[in-house]
Amino acid sequence: MYFGVDYYPEHWPKERWAIDARLMKETGINVVRLAEFAWAKMEPQLGDYHFEWLDEAIEILGKEGIKVVLGTPTPTPPIWIIEQNPEILPVNLDGTRLGFGGRHHCCQSNETYRNHIRRFVREMAGHYSNNPHVIGWQTDNEFGNSHQRLCACSSCRASFHKWLESKYKTIDELNKAWGTVFWSQTYSRFDQIPAPLPTPNSHNPSLLLDWKRFCSDLIVDFQKLQVDILREVCPNHFITHNFMGLFDKTDYFNLAKDLDFISHDQYPMHFRPERDPLSPPQNLAMALDLMRGMKQKAFWIMEQQAGHSGWELVSPAPRPGQLRLWTYQSVSHGADTVVYFRWRTCLFGTEEYWHGILPHSGIPGRRYAEIKKTIQELTPVMKECKGMLPGAGAAILFSYDQEWALQIQPHHPQLNYIKHLQGYYKALFDAHIPVDIISDKEDFSRYKLLVAPLQFLMTPELSTKFKDYVSRGGHLVLTMRTAVKNWNNTVIPEELPGDLSELLGIGIHDYDCLREIEQSVKWMPGDAAITSESANKWCDIITLDGAKALAVYEKDYYSGTPAITCNSYKNGLAYYVGTEPGTSIMEKFMHEAVKTAGLSPVMRTPKGVEATIRQDRDTAFIFILNHNAYAVSFEIPKEWQAVTGKEFPKDGFVSLPPFETAVFKSGRNL
Amino acid sequence: MYFGVDYYPEHWPKERWAIDARLMKETGINVVRLAEFAWAKMEPQLGDYHFEWLDEAIEILGKEGIKVVLGTPTPTPPIWIIEQNPEILPVNLDGTRLGFGGRHHCCQSNETYRNHIRRFVREMAGHYSNNPHVIGWQTDNEFGNSHQRLCACSSCRASFHKWLESKYKTIDELNKAWGTVFWSQTYSRFDQIPAPLPTPNSHNPSLLLDWKRFCSDLIVDFQKLQVDILREVCPNHFITHNFMGLFDKTDYFNLAKDLDFISHDQYPMHFRPERDPLSPPQNLAMALDLMRGMKQKAFWIMEQQAGHSGWELVSPAPRPGQLRLWTYQSVSHGADTVVYFRWRTCLFGTEEYWHGILPHSGIPGRRYAEIKKTIQELTPVMKECKGMLPGAGAAILFSYDQEWALQIQPHHPQLNYIKHLQGYYKALFDAHIPVDIISDKEDFSRYKLLVAPLQFLMTPELSTKFKDYVSRGGHLVLTMRTAVKNWNNTVIPEELPGDLSELLGIGIHDYDCLREIEQSVKWMPGDAAITSESANKWCDIITLDGAKALAVYEKDYYSGTPAITCNSYKNGLAYYVGTEPGTSIMEKFMHEAVKTAGLSPVMRTPKGVEATIRQDRDTAFIFILNHNAYAVSFEIPKEWQAVTGKEFPKDGFVSLPPFETAVFKSGRNL
Amino acid sequence: MYFGVDYYPEHWPKERWAIDARLMKETGINVVRLAEFAWAKMEPQLGDYHFEWLDEAIEILGKEGIKVVLGTPTPTPPIWIIEQNPEILPVNLDGTRLGFGGRHHCCQSNETYRNHIRRFVREMAGHYSNNPHVIGWQTDNEFGNSHQRLCACSSCRASFHKWLESKYKTIDELNKAWGTVFWSQTYSRFDQIPAPLPTPNSHNPSLLLDWKRFCSDLIVDFQKLQVDILREVCPNHFITHNFMGLFDKTDYFNLAKDLDFISHDQYPMHFRPERDPLSPPQNLAMALDLMRGMKQKAFWIMEQQAGHSGWELVSPAPRPGQLRLWTYQSVSHGADTVVYFRWRTCLFGTEEYWHGILPHSGIPGRRYAEIKKTIQELTPVMKECKGMLPGAGAAILFSYDQEWALQIQPHHPQLNYIKHLQGYYKALFDAHIPVDIISDKEDFSRYKLLVAPLQFLMTPELSTKFKDYVSRGGHLVLTMRTAVKNWNNTVIPEELPGDLSELLGIGIHDYDCLREIEQSVKWMPGDAAITSESANKWCDIITLDGAKALAVYEKDYYSGTPAITCNSYKNGLAYYVGTEPGTSIMEKFMHEAVKTAGLSPVMRTPKGVEATIRQDRDTAFIFILNHNAYAVSFEIPKEWQAVTGKEFPKDGFVSLPPFETAVFKSGRNL
Repeated sequence: MYFGVDYYPEHWPKERWAIDARLMKETGINVVRLAEFAWAKMEPQLGDYHFEWLDEAIEILGKEGIKVVLGTPTPTPPIWIIEQNPEILPVNLDGTRLGFGGRHHCCQSNETYRNHIRRFVREMAGHYSNNPHVIGWQTDNEFGNSHQRLCACSSCRASFHKWLESKYKTIDELNKAWGTVFWSQTYSRFDQIPAPLPTPNSHNPSLLLDWKRFCSDLIVDFQKLQVDILREVCPNHFITHNFMGLFDKTDYFNLAKDLDFISHDQYPMHFRPERDPLSPPQNLAMALDLMRGMKQKAFWIMEQQAGHSGWELVSPAPRPGQLRLWTYQSVSHGADTVVYFRWRTCLFGTEEYWHGILPHSGIPGRRYAEIKKTIQELTPVMKECKGMLPGAGAAILFSYDQEWALQIQPHHPQLNYIKHLQGYYKALFDAHIPVDIISDKEDFSRYKLLVAPLQFLMTPELSTKFKDYVSRGGHLVLTMRTAVKNWNNTVIPEELPGDLSELLGIGIHDYDCLREIEQSVKWMPGDAAITSESANKWCDIITLDGAKALAVYEKDYYSGTPAITCNSYKNGLAYYVGTEPGTSIMEKFMHEAVKTAGLSPVMRTPKGVEATIRQDRDTAFIFILNHNAYAVSFEIPKEWQAVTGKEFPKDGFVSLPPFETAVFKSGRNL
Repeated sequence: MYFGVDYYPEHWPKERWAIDARLMKETGINVVRLAEFAWAKMEPQLGDYHFEWLDEAIEILGKEGIKVVLGTPTPTPPIWIIEQNPEILPVNLDGTRLGFGGRHHCCQSNETYRNHIRRFVREMAGHYSNNPHVIGWQTDNEFGNSHQRLCACSSCRASFHKWLESKYKTIDELNKAWGTVFWSQTYSRFDQIPAPLPTPNSHNPSLLLDWKRFCSDLIVDFQKLQVDILREVCPNHFITHNFMGLFDKTDYFNLAKDLDFISHDQYPMHFRPERDPLSPPQNLAMALDLMRGMKQKAFWIMEQQAGHSGWELVSPAPRPGQLRLWTYQSVSHGADTVVYFRWRTCLFGTEEYWHGILPHSGIPGRRYAEIKKTIQELTPVMKECKGMLPGAGAAILFSYDQEWALQIQPHHPQLNYIKHLQGYYKALFDAHIPVDIISDKEDFSRYKLLVAPLQFLMTPELSTKFKDYVSRGGHLVLTMRTAVKNWNNTVIPEELPGDLSELLGIGIHDYDCLREIEQSVKWMPGDAAITSESANKWCDIITLDGAKALAVYEKDYYSGTPAITCNSYKNGLAYYVGTEPGTSIMEKFMHEAVKTAGLSPVMRTPKGVEATIRQDRDTAFIFILNHNAYAVSFEIPKEWQAVTGKEFPKDGFVSLPPFETAVFKSGRNL
Repeated sequence: MYFGVDYYPEHWPKERWAIDARLMKETGINVVRLAEFAWAKMEPQLGDYHFEWLDEAIEILGKEGIKVVLGTPTPTPPIWIIEQNPEILPVNLDGTRLGFGGRHHCCQSNETYRNHIRRFVREMAGHYSNNPHVIGWQTDNEFGNSHQRLCACSSCRASFHKWLESKYKTIDELNKAWGTVFWSQTYSRFDQIPAPLPTPNSHNPSLLLDWKRFCSDLIVDFQKLQVDILREVCPNHFITHNFMGLFDKTDYFNLAKDLDFISHDQYPMHFRPERDPLSPPQNLAMALDLMRGMKQKAFWIMEQQAGHSGWELVSPAPRPGQLRLWTYQSVSHGADTVVYFRWRTCLFGTEEYWHGILPHSGIPGRRYAEIKKTIQELTPVMKECKGMLPGAGAAILFSYDQEWALQIQPHHPQLNYIKHLQGYYKALFDAHIPVDIISDKEDFSRYKLLVAPLQFLMTPELSTKFKDYVSRGGHLVLTMRTAVKNWNNTVIPEELPGDLSELLGIGIHDYDCLREIEQSVKWMPGDAAITSESANKWCDIITLDGAKALAVYEKDYYSGTPAITCNSYKNGLAYYVGTEPGTSIMEKFMHEAVKTAGLSPVMRTPKGVEATIRQDRDTAFIFILNHNAYAVSFEIPKEWQAVTGKEFPKDGFVSLPPFETAVFKSGRNL
């Protein structure tokens, strides 16, 4: 259990290091991450290793009781590597080779580059394997960052060929699996297959999905190269990597397997124009739940936002209280260590405006004070709740394969896998139902309610797993576009929803894509005041075959047909949602599903107030987080005991100022 | 007279072929198009020909009485061709060479590729020249599709040089014709001339227009290569090609010359985000009239939409009745054969969501039933009206040269040649006046009213032709930007409208481009209730010199000057429209022009109900098409006799449900 | 003192030249610019010089008393140069080499191209050094036009390396100055440094700023190459260049140094879709004031708009009176010569719709008459006010370094250096306060009020200069983001506003970027009716340390803190504006600053009526320009004497129709 900072001693004069170490200690910081971009400083020329500066920095920090996580500096190969082997520079999907001058300027399949890594990581690991202050390693940095459209170089294409050969064994098998007979794309050798560089039209969707899987596996393999060396040379150190929440270049479930635990970079405020400057709380929460879901255990935050973010553009200032609020949120969803990014705002380079705890001047200010207070409050709580999890009764299925397949063919221009899932997540979040986010490899039986949206690709195994889950009493939610395709991304030639028809008690013989067409949904069961809401993007036109309708469409030629259905199957229930429903129908439906599954909320709070839980067999910690910029007041259970913050409750009521938090302790909950 | 489907036996197991053939027969289908993308299946390696599978498919179909049109598979050169000669891959106007993996990945001037075509087409043609079920050929597929920005490779550049030399003979002549003295662009040899790849600014507009003509001629030449072989080897087969309506890469009038008849691909529903999901009926009708205008005779629909269209994105579902409605519309405008795309929705490849008559499952459903009904109703009608044409008294001039020249220099950012013509077409469509769409090579004298918008490029011959037409009593409509340039796309140094001044009785000494400026037009002649409407994009500022004003501008420094004029010239009338008028002024003006020209409507119907005619000397078939999603009711002439649909009329009235159609028979009309 | 036209005899038959010359003379034209794009005509093959046609044209013009300015034709290297050395073609920042076919298709560092220029310019200069009609030279044409993203070729990269070496001497110094330790970008040799071609992320901001400076210096050096030859060969001719107002590729202050005077191209009407079709009058005025500021002296207009502008798109028609109005405006801000672009609208090439005084037909029309009238009215005025300047008491600081640095890091997506300055300029323009626009090298002491927005980069010298200015009684306005960085574009590690804190009497410990956040500002001093306005893009959160608040923020956690401050410092005043204030607060603040500085308006006029002044010790010419499309009426001082236009005033009142102008004379003003 640590609080920490990301620290770059190489950016500052040595004279400052001791001052920084002391200031850190005063804040309660006891761990730092170092060196993940410092290759050129550690090896300015081939074989000319310079760890002495880093040794010195570690020593100074160590003296203040601060432990060290080292990053392998592989996201930033120095110019002398690139200069000798410019073919290491990656090629994007337009065919352009990208140059030196930023970071992540490397092809991850390139064997020359991998040899440099083998050499350097072994050297670095050897140097630090017995350093008493070093406790673990971070591989590289944010794998996939800036690599979304990379790399299509000849080395990657050759690796893709090997990957395909390993998967399909024979070219005939690949031709069959992909349907290359379409448009005369039949191959006679694996090495004929293109990387998805521009063509006059679109590539085969099966090729595109395999390309995405290959790119993901390449990153996993690239990490493994380092992990194997680190495990061998530093058997006593842990190994982690800093993930990026809902980012999708890599199948994080796979990337997590080789790690002791995963870490996550949590930035509630964005600076890019295409994103919200401030993520809504439920999206932040969902990212944290997904991160916890990687290994179904507590994790680290390796980069927790500590100030405005910014490169060319700058985010708003985090409001007083927000840095503290976000720290509490991370902890409440399962973080056992929080490392802030970064210690001090850098004076040069691309990230000059990615603000640290200290401003450019290095003089402690508003952010320093807030984080210091946060650390001091939270440290005792975190000691107690270390390793605890929410013990959620509901889960949402998350699948990179489904996401990729729907990126390749989104059907509707605005259909987005993540946003679709966020719709279900938000309904559960607003109802204060703790949720695990799990892979389809996970054991479903732990959950009373399993929400599995957009199961576009289907295997017989997964289908059976769903049926087994419901058979044994589980409540399952499936949605539009389920079982359309097999895992090769070609269409299953059965009427929808394929062999899930019996489970769901429905058939789907027609569907509509809502392109400049309006459709709405009406909620049915026992509701005097009829709720009507938009249906969005897609409508499956459903025939009941045993199921009952919970909601129906209201317009056009399929007016009156079911939009949401529920089917009793053996000991359980199977729901189907044929569209992306508007907010109020989504709420009604999830409320129904939650209630029927017998799930209870952590507690009821006003709008914008998150209630989260970590618990073990006996004890529960309840975190109440006011994400609003205004004060709220509400009653809490009498048996709860206030752990942090003001003297809560007064007369059973808690009043939280803007962005304020409170932690309570109780017996096991839910 | 056929109904047909586009069929891909290579996509399905052999066992299915007989089932498909029987289902087709039951629907009334008696023709299929095959093989236009099946090169790799017919020749998996150089010279290794495999027609046996296709023979077998043809035999199975033939047994059910189904005839075959074969497509030459030249849009999809197999990987083994590309692998040996990657220079066949085309280069787009950014200079990027596009890769294998889609279709149309070929440079059409490349001699190596042409040799492959010569060899293969001769082999295929020889194999099928005496097959009793094969009746004709489709060259390639949708020439120009995906080739909008292709090809600027060195082979194409060299072909361009030859084309220019053949046109201009000497480089001095070209320099003069293009005005290359501007910006020191004077050439001393043809081979110095660039393809229009990116420069720091814009290319010479004369070069750009010649490039577009060259690209069009290259496609015509590329087709001729195949046509010559097919004519020689299969003298008893017809040859056609599937055009794409208002698509503009090729001058379709030229492409049509080498064909027995043209075919057209009609897709009322789009799936791309940049287009309307559903084309308005008048735009669909205009595309059909243009297609009929290619050879002024009946034509085939080679691809009639049979379901949702889609690649990565999906269109809405065609509403019940729409597939039937669109089939009727195609027939009513002159289609003598309708081939639906496609038989069954494909399970793999880019077009997985381009829905056929059958769904993915192959089980006949809603679309199958509707198309079956359509075929059975229409077959007797089509037998009777085979070869009949509308016998239109009005025509609109269509010119690819004008379109290209205005694409190069649109003047106003929203000025679009097609959309401008659609404005005139819509006014005639709404007035139920049958229209031919003709090239400027056509004989004008057949028409009482000729609308010739945007005659931006002018030759002395065309000018004389217009004058002769009006002299002999024709009524002619010319519009803004007429006679600005000569055919080399350089400016005619005369005051506008050049040597058409006398014909039009006007001069134009100034003009205004409506960029963030509002202007309006007032309709004048004898109209108590003044109609005022927006003038759009451009205003010619007109001085009357014999003509009279039909409408005047209302604003700014040229308020009160004429916007639309009419001039008596010898035995006819010449109108001039100095702007792109808003809807109601356009209606008033075209109403005036139609009435004065003595043209009558097919009949008057409610809004959204199309009335179309096909007739010969004695008999007329009138098609009434309700494009509305609601029912309409109206009176029809007593002498009309109902041919299809319900028992029409009742008490002289016809009532049509949403998307419903009706066909009547009468004596010659109009 | 001249009126002139840009003339292209090479575009027209010789027979026309004498007609043109006579028509020019009748208009009052006495100068032409020739030949700046005519290289291919003057040297069709290497060493084959042909000046005879130009000699003849000059002779014909000379006979009508028309003088000649010759342009060096270096923006358009002929095809025979490019063909022999295609490496002269420039490479844009995507890495694409741009082709022949437009203009400006040349790399300005390329030594082969420079040798062609040395040879040709010497030849041309030698030929015309003693021609009695030739009076001067224009170098090239609009340096930087179309070169925004050019050139990143290997020659330019090598020149960049030399430039960097010359600046930083050692690579260690560069590494330190740029902070290349960030992301392991440390270099060991200058020749390792990349041009800013695409990387997977962003380049180092210090590299980017130096690249922009290098590109600017390259153009200055490229001009000097020609200037040196012209000075040597034609010692009696002046040398100028046509600048483009607010364009920013080159530091125009530096480019101006080698010239006798600068010229400017003034186009109030744009044709590109991304710009306003008509620039607001204050933006036109600001461009003219900046141009005057280049050398703080009168200048030429080398291209004054003479008709619609246009390439592929066309601008609106200049309204009757506007060409005259814009000419008056140019003269009123310091133009002593006005050359119209162009004489006659060209019949071919890219600029066919860039309309000249004469239309395509060559027949004088509306524009000819208006310009003739303008020249005849203005000639006597200009003789009198030649060399006079406004004698402004206020100045705005303009800096290309600041602009570039903020382009690299705009902070807020809409923050734009030019638009920010236009906010301050507009407030002064609306208040009719004459303004000089000056570089930070200029002597500040001439001004009572100095507005220096966005002094993002700061040096000790500049800081001292500001302090000295205020010490001696100056009134200084500084704004948000001042003193954030040093001149190397790395952050100054002091609390904001750095060593200007004492001068400004404030500290800034926090700031907010207004991304989807609303903030407002309230004006404080003695204002019964409170004015509240939006704060835009950025808010510095200010602590008073001696200064007083003139306005405060109204919202969020820094509600009530100062937004605009004023500090007495020695004999002067120092204002600080912490945001980009909305219009009415900007007006109130500048009104306060102007009044306190003791500045008076030229006169008060109605909205949209510009009042401008040129004066010497004794005499002032006041230009009143009605930019409105409607008439206005107002009183003028009795002592003013009408110089042009109608008999002004009547009963002390002047009434100006739309776009009308009036010039008055008085004793020294302000």
